[in-house]
Amino acid sequence: MNDEFYMNLAIDEAWKYQFLTYPNPAVGCLILSKNGEILSCEAHQKAGMPHAELNAVISALQRLNPNLKAVFKTAKNANELYALALQNHANLLSGARAYVSLEPCSHHGKTPPCANLLKELGFAKVIIATKDVSEHAKGGEQVLNVAGISTQIGVCKDRADELLEPFWAWSNGNFSFFKIALTQNGVASGGIISNHASRTHTHAIRSLVSLLVIGGNTVRTDRPTLDTRLINGGKNPDVLIYSNETKFDTSIPLFSIKDRKVTISNSLEAAFERHFVMFEGGGNALSNLDKRVKWLLIYRSNEFKDAKNISLNLKIKIMHRAEFDDNELLWCKIIN
Amino acid sequence: MNDEFYMNLAIDEAWKYQFLTYPNPAVGCLILSKNGEILSCEAHQKAGMPHAELNAVISALQRLNPNLKAVFKTAKNANELYALALQNHANLLSGARAYVSLEPCSHHGKTPPCANLLKELGFAKVIIATKDVSEHAKGGEQVLNVAGISTQIGVCKDRADELLEPFWAWSNGNFSFFKIALTQNGVASGGIISNHASRTHTHAIRSLVSLLVIGGNTVRTDRPTLDTRLINGGKNPDVLIYSNETKFDTSIPLFSIKDRKVTISNSLEAAFERHFVMFEGGGNALSNLDKRVKWLLIYRSNEFKDAKNISLNLKIKIMHRAEFDDNELLWCKIIN
Repeated sequence: MNDEFYMNLAIDEAWKYQFLTYPNPAVGCLILSKNGEILSCEAHQKAGMPHAELNAVISALQRLNPNLKAVFKTAKNANELYALALQNHANLLSGARAYVSLEPCSHHGKTPPCANLLKELGFAKVIIATKDVSEHAKGGEQVLNVAGISTQIGVCKDRADELLEPFWAWSNGNFSFFKIALTQNGVASGGIISNHASRTHTHAIRSLVSLLVIGGNTVRTDRPTLDTRLINGGKNPDVLIYSNETKFDTSIPLFSIKDRKVTISNSLEAAFERHFVMFEGGGNALSNLDKRVKWLLIYRSNEFKDAKNISLNLKIKIMHRAEFDDNELLWCKIIN
Repeated sequence: MNDEFYMNLAIDEAWKYQFLTYPNPAVGCLILSKNGEILSCEAHQKAGMPHAELNAVISALQRLNPNLKAVFKTAKNANELYALALQNHANLLSGARAYVSLEPCSHHGKTPPCANLLKELGFAKVIIATKDVSEHAKGGEQVLNVAGISTQIGVCKDRADELLEPFWAWSNGNFSFFKIALTQNGVASGGIISNHASRTHTHAIRSLVSLLVIGGNTVRTDRPTLDTRLINGGKNPDVLIYSNETKFDTSIPLFSIKDRKVTISNSLEAAFERHFVMFEGGGNALSNLDKRVKWLLIYRSNEFKDAKNISLNLKIKIMHRAEFDDNELLWCKIIN
């Protein structure tokens, strides 16, 4: 097994939390012991929670010393967890290697810098997929090098850059994606397509986006709610109905969601001024998609249906697959 | 990382050669050093070639002592490779663990028994996903236990049993599967759907099957060749055209393939008497599939096409995914 193998595992782990880390980047970290054993593979899961490196360090230390579980359990937040790792590592990770999909941060944000954590714990080498170019976080590699820790940059860089596309885009103003549910034979209509686990994941994403855009036809046909009822404490996103007509039956459930602003417009310009925008709809919406929508999320059921498919010409690149019970989610980039 | 993690890697490796090992089973083997480092992960690739355990042992030994590459290169066949492993292992794998998707064989077939190999090299533990119940090969676990090697059975058993379904079925008389190429939106028609790498894989499978079954309508519409021109030295399978009509335009290319027997019949009974049978066709053939056809192989392109889908009701279970450049292959079980 080589560096690419380990880095791919770290990147796969990060993909599990893609979008869910908003506004932070999705990052994964794998730790290999001095002897080459995989000790842990963890990811950053949510803004405010520990970075990937801290999660991987905690998991590796607990593996090497199970008594530490009780110690780390007392941490009330990422800062305390970080402090406990520094106090209790007992050089267990001395000589270890870390594979990180993004250069460890060098700044004190909501948590202290990850580069410093790896340095203090005596890591021998840090392999980094891609550099952090953000003004406030960059410089982690230098921190490590100054401390005499060897680094290597660029392992699986393309995959790591793909993983980070949403982060860089929403940091620069806007990241927009389209979500659709399809059967194995491309049917999007005629009732619910995807399973409960897939819809729960969709609701978790809806809860984070700045705005949800949906076509007027879909609103009239499907009479959707577009809420986040399948998750606890979800935020219901504002909705932009993209339509030339301004009259809608306001008994359609989406209009009755508390704390939601619904806008009806024949222009998408306002949408692309928001940071993180989800488009939903069927084949017609996908056929006429604005070029600024970069990614396509296909939730694919495990059934063929005796019905008409969505029919359009479109080329995609599948970047990652996730399983939700008997359904899958294809994370795709729109090529043309 | 736990036993399931390592066994899943071994099973994933085996899937790369699913069908291609015919009439042998697809088997994978991962070797973990005494210290827990992954040393190798290999599979049985083709009948007559080394078993998974031997491939993994060779790869692990070469990793630990690169000088052995030149030694192992001199082997002219699996038997010689086995002998060289016994002569040159220098206890490098003493104390190691092997994760094997199928119980190591205990018999002298085309190669000496794998259980004996693991024993002679001093493995400390062998983790086995599922037992070998074949009369001639079973008993490997006992060989290991008698030699004082600890074993564990049943890790990822369900996945390993799925992997072996074709093997048990063709050993018991017949295994039949259906192959189709689909776009992202379920279109099967209108020219070539899948890419070169996918079609090459199809040809490799065609070269091994006992019989290829195709519907009369597909023959008339697509005028196929059904050969194996994309691989070197491929065997062109006999063809059964499933049709009520017996007259076909014999200028259709499939009729002119050397050493091929073409049968036209309105009965499939003869097909299910063959060991390994591939069905090809479109949506109509899939809708009317015989219940004895157990698996569905979907080669999925990376494009949506502006055309009608295949339309039918069918539920599948995706067991494994493989990538062929920008296409994927879904290995599916037909549920109903």
